[in-house]
This record gives sequence, C-alpha cells and structure tokens, in this order.
Amino acid sequence: MKTLWILSLCLLLSAPAGWPADGEGLRGYSAASAAAERDWEVKFRAIPDPANLRSSMQRLSARPHHVGSAYDKENAEWILARFKEWGWDAQIETFDVLFPTPKERAMEMVEPTRFTAKLAEPTVAADATSSQHSEQLPTYNAYSIDGDVTGPLVYVNYGVPEDYEALDRLGISVKGAIVIARYGGSWRGIKPKVAAEHGAIGCLIYSDPLDDGYHEGDTFPDGPFRSKDGVQRGSVMDMPVYPGDPLTPGVGATKDAKRLPLSQAATLTKIPVMPISYGDAEPLLAALKGPLAPAAWRGGLPIAYHVGPGPAKVHLKLAFNWDMKTLYDVIARIPGTSDPDQWIIRGNHHDAWVNGAEDPLSGTGPLLEEARALGALVRQGWKPRRTIVYCAWDGEEEGLLGSTEWAEAHAEELERKAAVYINSDGNGRGVLQAQGSHTLEKFINGVARDIDDPEAKISVWKRLQAWRIANAAADRQDARQRPDLRIGALGSGSDYTAFLDHLGVASLNLSFGGEDQGGIYHSIYDDFYWYTHFADTDFAYGRALAQTAGTAVMRLADAEVLPLDFDDFTETLRRYVGEVRTLASEKRDQTIERNREIDDGIFAAVEDPRRKTVAPPKEEVPPFLNFAPLDNGLAALQRTADAYDKALAHAADNGGPALTTAALRDANARLIAVERALTLNDGLPGRPWFRHQIYAPGLYTGYGVKTLPAVRESIEQKQWKLAEEEIVRVGKVLENTGEAIAGATSELNRAIP
Amino acid sequence: MKTLWILSLCLLLSAPAGWPADGEGLRGYSAASAAAERDWEVKFRAIPDPANLRSSMQRLSARPHHVGSAYDKENAEWILARFKEWGWDAQIETFDVLFPTPKERAMEMVEPTRFTAKLAEPTVAADATSSQHSEQLPTYNAYSIDGDVTGPLVYVNYGVPEDYEALDRLGISVKGAIVIARYGGSWRGIKPKVAAEHGAIGCLIYSDPLDDGYHEGDTFPDGPFRSKDGVQRGSVMDMPVYPGDPLTPGVGATKDAKRLPLSQAATLTKIPVMPISYGDAEPLLAALKGPLAPAAWRGGLPIAYHVGPGPAKVHLKLAFNWDMKTLYDVIARIPGTSDPDQWIIRGNHHDAWVNGAEDPLSGTGPLLEEARALGALVRQGWKPRRTIVYCAWDGEEEGLLGSTEWAEAHAEELERKAAVYINSDGNGRGVLQAQGSHTLEKFINGVARDIDDPEAKISVWKRLQAWRIANAAADRQDARQRPDLRIGALGSGSDYTAFLDHLGVASLNLSFGGEDQGGIYHSIYDDFYWYTHFADTDFAYGRALAQTAGTAVMRLADAEVLPLDFDDFTETLRRYVGEVRTLASEKRDQTIERNREIDDGIFAAVEDPRRKTVAPPKEEVPPFLNFAPLDNGLAALQRTADAYDKALAHAADNGGPALTTAALRDANARLIAVERALTLNDGLPGRPWFRHQIYAPGLYTGYGVKTLPAVRESIEQKQWKLAEEEIVRVGKVLENTGEAIAGATSELNRAIP
Repeated sequence: MKTLWILSLCLLLSAPAGWPADGEGLRGYSAASAAAERDWEVKFRAIPDPANLRSSMQRLSARPHHVGSAYDKENAEWILARFKEWGWDAQIETFDVLFPTPKERAMEMVEPTRFTAKLAEPTVAADATSSQHSEQLPTYNAYSIDGDVTGPLVYVNYGVPEDYEALDRLGISVKGAIVIARYGGSWRGIKPKVAAEHGAIGCLIYSDPLDDGYHEGDTFPDGPFRSKDGVQRGSVMDMPVYPGDPLTPGVGATKDAKRLPLSQAATLTKIPVMPISYGDAEPLLAALKGPLAPAAWRGGLPIAYHVGPGPAKVHLKLAFNWDMKTLYDVIARIPGTSDPDQWIIRGNHHDAWVNGAEDPLSGTGPLLEEARALGALVRQGWKPRRTIVYCAWDGEEEGLLGSTEWAEAHAEELERKAAVYINSDGNGRGVLQAQGSHTLEKFINGVARDIDDPEAKISVWKRLQAWRIANAAADRQDARQRPDLRIGALGSGSDYTAFLDHLGVASLNLSFGGEDQGGIYHSIYDDFYWYTHFADTDFAYGRALAQTAGTAVMRLADAEVLPLDFDDFTETLRRYVGEVRTLASEKRDQTIERNREIDDGIFAAVEDPRRKTVAPPKEEVPPFLNFAPLDNGLAALQRTADAYDKALAHAADNGGPALTTAALRDANARLIAVERALTLNDGLPGRPWFRHQIYAPGLYTGYGVKTLPAVRESIEQKQWKLAEEEIVRVGKVLENTGEAIAGATSELNRAIP
Repeated sequence: MKTLWILSLCLLLSAPAGWPADGEGLRGYSAASAAAERDWEVKFRAIPDPANLRSSMQRLSARPHHVGSAYDKENAEWILARFKEWGWDAQIETFDVLFPTPKERAMEMVEPTRFTAKLAEPTVAADATSSQHSEQLPTYNAYSIDGDVTGPLVYVNYGVPEDYEALDRLGISVKGAIVIARYGGSWRGIKPKVAAEHGAIGCLIYSDPLDDGYHEGDTFPDGPFRSKDGVQRGSVMDMPVYPGDPLTPGVGATKDAKRLPLSQAATLTKIPVMPISYGDAEPLLAALKGPLAPAAWRGGLPIAYHVGPGPAKVHLKLAFNWDMKTLYDVIARIPGTSDPDQWIIRGNHHDAWVNGAEDPLSGTGPLLEEARALGALVRQGWKPRRTIVYCAWDGEEEGLLGSTEWAEAHAEELERKAAVYINSDGNGRGVLQAQGSHTLEKFINGVARDIDDPEAKISVWKRLQAWRIANAAADRQDARQRPDLRIGALGSGSDYTAFLDHLGVASLNLSFGGEDQGGIYHSIYDDFYWYTHFADTDFAYGRALAQTAGTAVMRLADAEVLPLDFDDFTETLRRYVGEVRTLASEKRDQTIERNREIDDGIFAAVEDPRRKTVAPPKEEVPPFLNFAPLDNGLAALQRTADAYDKALAHAADNGGPALTTAALRDANARLIAVERALTLNDGLPGRPWFRHQIYAPGLYTGYGVKTLPAVRESIEQKQWKLAEEEIVRVGKVLENTGEAIAGATSELNRAIP
C-alpha cells in the first residue's frame, strides 16, 4: 500500500507562506498516525485547568521554599505524590551540594557621611506571605566569598568589560575600590567577576529604578514594579565556567561523589559581593563625585550620577555558612511502548529564592497540569512510542544545581537516550517565547500553529507573527515571508543548560510573555499576591503553556520519525557564520580607524581640558581570518540536509506503516545523535564543561548566548590565533554533523521496504 | 600686468583635502589686497581682550534688563556710548511694541489632593543677583492669552503632533483638558499651539530633570544644571507665522505705524499657557493615572509617568497687562569707502529675560569687543570697502522684536544694500558652531581656518573637523574628505530670522559650544555668577568668537568680489532634494505598510486586552510626486555655478586691480541679489512673511529648520496636491537663482579689461 507522509517540507514547497489551517499534516507522521495523534492532542489540550494552576501556585508558594528549607522538601514530596496520584512512575532523587547562606551581612558608608544600609525587605500589609521573615533567605548573592573590605566607591554602570573601557577613557581605576554596579546588561555573576579582574576588592549590585522600578511603572503594592526596598537575590557563581555544585564539576553530587575541597571550587567569586535595593544605593551614589557618568550609565534616581572614586567610602562585611544541603529532584516517567530508550524530557524547577510564585511556580504549575493530563490520557489508552520523563528540579536558583547534578549523574544513559529536552521557568501573558536548538525550529512552529491564544482568539503562532510584524520593523519581511518564525538561541539561566551545552541534547525553552513586566524578581514580593494581581491573573496563559509544552512532548513522543529539521538549522547557522565574519571585519575596521584617529591627534584635539580623558592605546590591526572551514562545513550541512529531505520525502511516498521497525529505530537513534555531533569532548576554550559548539552562554554575558562561541569569543577577545584554530575545529564539527545527518539519511533509506 | 587671484576653488582643485596652512589665498581678493587684508586681520585679532568681556558682562548683567525695564534702556545707552567712544556713527532706534507682563498667575491642583504651585525662583545665597526679586520678571510665557480654566490634566510629552498621534493610539483625548508638556522636542510656542488644535483649554510647560536638571549633572549652585525651582520663561507667540510685534506684521513698529487691534493679533496663543519648575510639576505628574506613558515619554522624576486624563485636576489662572513698551535698538556704522551701499551687518541682542549673562551677554560682549577693535583699526588707517553695520538688538527674547521691526522698517533699503548678516546669541566653550546660508559655507570655512582654538592650540576649523571625526561616525568620511566642513541650515530662534527668511539676506549664525551645558536658560540664575563659575569662565572663547565674527565681517567688507560660492550651495541643495524625495517615498511605504497591517488584523492581533489601544485609521496611499522641476532647477544651478567659477578663475588670471570698478560693483550687487532670488514675494504656504524657499523654521518645530520648507512640510502634512505645486514653484526659484548667478557671471566677465 502506498502511504502518504505529509511532510512540512512538502507543504513548504507548495505553500511557502503558510501552513494548512486545518491540515492533518504532521512532520514525521504517516497520515494514519497523524490523525490519531491529533485526536489525542485535542483530548490533551482540553484537560489543563486554570483553577488547578491557581491552587498549585497557592500551595507551593505558601512559604519560602529555597534549597535547604523545610518547605522545599515538603513541596518536592507534594509534587511526588501528585505524579504518583496521576499514574506516573515517580521518585525523588537527592544530591548533596554546597549552598552557602549568610551568617553576617553589613554594609555602611563611612565617608563622607555615615549611612548604614538596611538590607531588608519590609512586610507589605496587603501581601500576606511578605511577612514570613523568619523563613525568608536574607538578601544576598550566593557563592560570594566571605570578606571584610573597606574602600572608595566607584560606579561601574552594568559592570561589563566595555564599562571598564569607558572608565579607562575617564582615567578611573577600580584597583582597591569597592564597585557598585546596577543590575542588567549582563547576568549578575559577571559583575563581581569583571570587577575582580580589574582589581576591585568588593562589589555591590543594586536594582536601579530605571530598569525595574518606578521608571517602568507603578511600584509594589500599587503596581508590579520594584519598590525602594526590594532586592534581587541571586547566584553569582561563575556559571559560564561550569554550573551546578561547585565541588563536583562534571559529576553528579551523589552522596559518595568525589568532592573538591572548598578552596579549589573554581566558581566562587574572587571578591565579596552583595545585592542592595535602590533605597540603600541612593545615599551611596549621591555621595559620589568625580566625572559625571556617561549618559547611557545614568539611571532613574533623582541625582546626578557620578563615577567616583569616592569621596564615598564603603565598608562591606560578609560571612557565610558554607554548608552542604540536600536537593530534591522529582523525576517521573511514562515508559515508551515501542522505543522506551528514546526519551523526551520535560522540566521546570520547583525551588525558589523566597516564595517564588512567578519564578518558578508559574512554570511549575503548567508542568504539573501537563503531567496530570498525560496521566489521564494513558488511562484512556494513549500509548506513547517513546519514554516521557518529567522533572521538577530543585536548586535551580543557586546555579542550576538539580538539573546539572542529575544530568551529570546520568550522563552516560542520557547521551544514549535523551532525544529532546523541553524546559520552562516561569510564565506570563503575551506571545510565545521559544528558544532552542534550530533543529527543532520547524517542529515548534508546527506546535505553535495548533495552540489557541487565550486573548487574541487566533493561534499563538499567528499572534507571534503579528507581534513581530508590528514591533520589529527590521524583521517584518522575514516574519511575513519565512514559513517558520525564527526562534532564539539558548544561552543559559535555566535548567536546559546541562542538557544542551554539556550533553548535546536538542533543547527548547518555552514561555509566554511580553504583556506584563514586573520588578519583584528574586524578592520576597514574588508571591501569590503579586502574581494574582499583576501577572497572568486568571492563569489563561498558564493553561496555554501547558497546552504548548504538553503538545510538544506528545508529538515528539509519538512521531514515527523524530521531527527534526536541518534546513532551518543550516540557514540559521549560515547567518551565524555571516555574523562572525562581519564581527571580524568590523574589529579590523574599528582598529584601523581608531589607530588612525590616534595618529591624527583626534583625541588630543577634542579633549576638554576641564574633563580630562585618556586616549585608548594603539592596537595591532587584526589579521584577515580564513573562514573557509566554516563555509565548507556549511556546504556539507546543506548537502546532507538536502539528501535527508529527499529521503524523508521518499519515505513519505513509500514508507509509513510499512517501514522496517528496527531500521526506523536506528534512524531515530541517528537523528538523536545529530545534536551530539555538534559537541566536542574537550569543550570550549578554557571551559571544557561547555561542549556544544553552536550555543553557549557568553563568558562575559553569563546568560546571554554566544553562537559559534569558540569562534565569536576568540574574535571578541582579540585572540586571533585561537580564532583561526577554532574556525578549523568548528568547521570540522559542521562536517561531522553533516556526516551524522547522512547516517540518519541512510538508515531512513534502509527502512524503506 | 598679469595678476593672480588666489581662489579657494583653485586650491580646492589642487589640494582637495586641505587648505594652505599659512597661505595668502583669500577668495575674492587679489594677491595684493589679500596680503593687506591679512595684515589688518592679524592686527584685529590681537585686540579683543577677555578682561573687557568679563567687565561688560558684569556691567550689563548687574540688574534685570528685559524689554520695558529701566536697566534695558540704561544698557542700550551704555552700549551707544561705547560705540561712539570707539568712533562709530551710532544711534538708538526705538520701536513701540506689544509686550504683555503678568498681572495674575495662579496654578493649583484641586483634585485628587490640593496643591498650590510656588511659581517662584528662590534666592541662592552665593549668587548675588538672584535676590533682585523686585526687578525680575515673574516666571511666565509671553503672549499667552489671559485665561481662567479648570480641567483634568493630561501629560503630552513634548506636545508635538506625533505625541498626539501616540495619544490617539492610547484612546486619550485632550479635549477640555489642561495639558502638561515638558520643555524640549520643539520650540515652546509649538506646545500650546498644538494643544489648542487638539481641543485643550490650557497648557503647562515644565522643565523635566531628564532634559536639563540633575540627570544632566549637578544642579545650581553646586553645578550648572536646573534646580527644582528653576523655571524657563519664554515667548510663546506663533513665530513660525510671523515674528516681531504681533500688532505690526510686515511693517516696522514705528510710532506712527498702522497697528492691528489686539483682537486681530494672529500670533497670540489660543489658550493660556504657563511654564513651571519640576518642583511644581512633580505633584501634578505623580497624581496622574491612566495609561503608563510610552517609554520615550518618561522623564527623570522619581515617579511612574502616567498620561491621565486625571484624576489630577488643575486650575490655571492667568491675566496680563497688555501694554506697549519701547524697544531700544543700538545701530552703529562704519561707512564703506568705495562701496558704501553694500552693507555687512552684524548683530546680537542686548535684552534678556532676567539678568541674562549667557543669553545674550556672552554674545553681546564679543560683538562689543569687535566694535572696539574695528574702531581702533579705522583710527590706524583701515578703510573698509563696504559699509559695516553693528546692531545691539532689543526685545529678542519676546519674539525677535528689535531685529524684526528694524528689518521691516528698513526693508526697502536693506533689500538693495544688505550683503550679509552675521548673528550671534550667546557663547560657550568648545567647537565652532556655524549655521547659515550655504552660499557662505566655503567663506566661513576659510575664516575658521584662521582662528586659533584657545584650548587645543590648533585652528578652530581643525578642532571642529576632529570633533566630527571623533563624534559623528556617520559623517566621518565627509568630515575627512570634503574640503569644507558642512554648516547647518538656519531655522529660527534668533535675530537672523528677519534678514534671512523675510528679506533674503545671506546670513550666518556663529558661536562656540559643546563643552559645557547648563540648566539656567531663561531663569534668574542665568547671571554673572553662573557664567563665571560654569561656562567660558575665562572668556577665552568669548575672545575667539569676537575674532571669528570680526574676521568674517572684515573679510566680507574688504573683498573685491564678495566671497560667495555656489558649488557647496548646489551640492547641499542636492542633498535636500534627495531628502524630500526620500521623505515622500517613505510616506508612501509607511502608508502602504500600515494599511496592510490594518487589513491583516495585526493591530487587533497584538492588542493587550488590559491595555486597550486604538488602531490608526486607514489612509489613502500617497501618489508618486514629480520631482523633475527640482532636478531641473538643480541642473540650472550646477550649470550656472560652474560658469561662475570659470568667470572667477578668468578674473583671477586677468583681473585684480585692473578690473573695471563700476562693473565690479555691479557684479557684487548681482551676487548680493542671488540670495534674494531664493525668496518669493508671497512667501510660504499660509505664512507669507516667510519668503525664503530654502530655509524656514518648521510650522511644527518652531525653531528647528525645514529646508525646502514648502515642499517638505506639504509632504509631511500629506497635502499631496500642494506638494506638487510647491515642487514646481521651488523648481522655478532654483532656475531663477541660476539666472541670478548667470547675471553675476556676466557682470564679472564684463569687469575684465
């Protein structure tokens, strides 16, 4: 019997600007199985219930539930009980990790006037849980070292490397100083790291009202934004080197794991660091003199921002309990029927810095509703082809602890079995925000076309397209004409990191957002009161997230051929290669131009004698780099992606139920291995834990992604010889990936009877 | 004898990237007269003395000296005495003008809480003249109508037309409301005008600290920026319709002039308007609710900016004494020896809102030092070929009263005789800021190459070039490679307006600036204390301005052939034609795109139900416009400019002292007439007073220039039929100008023996 595989590729060719509104087409599915799949998916999407999202958030956020707290464990046990109640094979896996908590925190200005920082978030009367002070973690940055330092204060804007270049131009050094940086512009852990690299002895990080306070809207409890005493807690471990337990890099922090001594933990900060509110920051900043801060550095406080150093002099004292704490990861499974050794993994963390309604419970709730619904489908007879693994991670906030330790502990099995990891980490109202492996771009576009937007009454795909047309003029034509909406690349900042970057598991991160912002991140005010007043208050988007992520899980778990795609991937990679090429060329042009300006005396000519500046030094002009290895890699990808498309089309014409089961399983195993081919065992330069060669968090962005990281960062850091070498290495990775695709292609051809 | 005229054109051809560092070449001069001119100029530039600038500022700013004040008249008489002392033929010309001053000012918030505005600028102890309250004009906007209105408050950002489009999108109307706009984004008079057009009943204008308060730096008296009670006074007459006395449009306000009744004065506001400090504005803005202001609208106050309307409700009461006051223009002359009927005019006003050290005395002082120096040169035997007219204007602040009435009163004579007008209006530290007629661009570049920068010890031309290379990446290559640095076009806002825009006299406006800013504009704190602490404190740049403007005056007064140039002019016009062409094309594209988005339901799709917006209406797609008349006009200009260059070169080879005097005088008269050819007697659409067809202040910018105004504004305002007509009219103007250039060319050829 001739069966018809309806492939998105074919649809793409025949109707490049759209997707069949009510078509049965599902990439990787035969027509018959697509119809069955659609029936199950429709049943699934009817189940998630906003009332449950509300009640689970209320329950799980009722008390502070950070790692090591009683309620963190209680929550894990409650989640475990739910999974079991819904028919899942579930257990708690524990890990023992280093987790420092404050023993002493003090910050005071000692000159030119005296000011002692409050370092406390007060109770807000309307907000019941804000009063649970005895259980709340104090405001601090986890994995700061102990310290007792006094020094002049310097304002360093976001505290990223370019800010220090601007300070150099102003003739300001932070050697021996305590820096004060504002949140934003990078992940927070970058700020003390770069400050220490420049000789600072301490670091304060504050939330400027320009960024998430009154400048953005009314402050809590009148509105969702940060009030003057709100503080953003957060981890400052050097995660771009490796996340997870600082004492067990690369291995699971099981009871018997070999641990580094504390003194050898590479990811602690080099200087003491503490977050403060803008209430505590304002007197310090107002006391600074020295050059006026550059225009882009000035925040929303009603003061003239100066850089310093001094006359403000600050004393910072921090001491921590360097304790071990236990993580409670809840892991639940629905075994696959025909391909149990191919795993579709879904996760969201359950721990929080304090009560954590938005972060993470607005994502945890949908995950639980998905689990409840999938459990119900199994009882109704649904039999997923592949194994489904649901994970409620602990210890995400401190450094992706629960997911990293679990991934490291099970690395060998995951490398063989993990097909796709789907993450979420909080949710709000608005448009679908999907980032991830571009081999999954076409797939998640397909899912998005089948989810109803709760507000606009169109698909979330249509709404996202409309949003891009309305808001991103530069991408408007792309959004209109490209069959698939682009997804962003993943950096770090949530639990996909170990899966994607360390193990090479194709990953997605999903949420809705864009319509509400807030300023309660990592404060005691991120709680049920805040969420139900200012965010997805009726949990309509929580339901949409459950529908999106759950549909994705089902569609991946049931597909005859895993719906990966290498065309969007190759096209996206071509853009990345174009970007690094442009970056190298711009670096050359900028260096040539700056050297010329120095030679021509331009810096001297424009100098204002009342505002002395320091001209930058002349630099060697960067060499032209040979990008041919990347071009050759792209050519190999394009060639093998085309051949794979042909094989898939051939299978569509000749395969379906008739496909050879064993060969099909092998073809899928080969498909799973394609993302692995994008990794190298010795990782990125200087950080072997990060193995993926296409995506990584930036060494100096922390969360923000650097695509083609080895090449891009070596160019950014002017390491031209390394850049040449990395281009060759990454070019080879692309060629190997082409071979992996070719392997999947030949297995697929072998499966055709 | 064969003489060599050294023409900048020739230099340009032989050394396109530079100017002879120490050459004798002066455009329009024979070698012999160039050498003599340079000798006189060197003598001239040695004379201006910072000590005199300091003492004249101290003297003239010792008391408030606004129109109608005793000290305004005393200053005029003091200036008159100085001119006479220096040997000038000087007198005071008086005009009688409408000048309202406050009888009653009150503003209070009556809901939701009560707040009465202070409307007063307090004494600052360190600043002696800030205590002269009995002589200070209160804080008010001149030419606001009387009014007593109460209404809900709406925040309208800068209050320009696009801001009301944004309000439309938010569904907010200002009908029946009092608007509060911040200073900036347009000239202040535009704010009540646009507010009234949209149905508002009153208007407040405040100085946001983002724009000239603490966000920009330390506030007075710690620094130069606006403190919380500082208020910007200022005129709000509808100057883009006509400046000068509202009762005598187009004619001088002499004693016997025919005057309009007050009720027919077209340039008074339609609604009452008052300026306030941010101290007075903050409680009002903080009391607004309604939609959050768009991100770009938010200022520097420590509040969430909402748009309203209400619940803040404001009561505004204003009543004025609608009195006539006398202006005292001081006019001084050095008669020309051979061409007394060709005038080089130089002006700066002497009146101020209060003590006015920066505005205008930092420009008045240099003008006086020029006058002293030129008087000294005359005593030493210098005999300018042309007549030099120096003017210290009164009543500039209220609406360019003194210069406008004088220009109107002497229009017939000025149309025949005025060759060039050179204006200044305040001065600071930094780079040369020259704007004006592009027929003078090459000339003022030549002057700038001969002035030493007091800080950088290079020419002010070199420093400006360096500044553009350092700060304006987009213009970097232009600044490096073009022989002349570009000068900006003139809009309005100072006394060149009547000369350039009404009479068609080629004009320049000169100052130094860029290194210091401040926030004392039009407040009681713009005084000697402020200027000598925070601006050009040693008057080094005051001296440089006197050297620049005085050198320009001398070089224009002595040249055998007036050093106008039509190449830079034509090239600049070609850019303007390109801009209006692009503008029309962008309007088309934007309309097509927006209509498409409306048709495609994009606005509905992205709508946030909690923040309702109103989609814009569909609009007719603009037609393609025929720009050929402008292209033909440009071609005529290019052709005749080329022919003029040839004639000038021919004169250089064969002329010099041998040139026929009468024909040379005629050639210069024809050159003077070229700028006149750029005017039309019936002026711009809807505003006949503005006759220049290349430069005008925008109807909705107030000060900001619109080049090719009739064409540009008709396109901006979507008046497509008018745009077609204006393109034809302006095209004809360019052709006529070509003919005027051709006329000058043939006279010049006739002068060659």
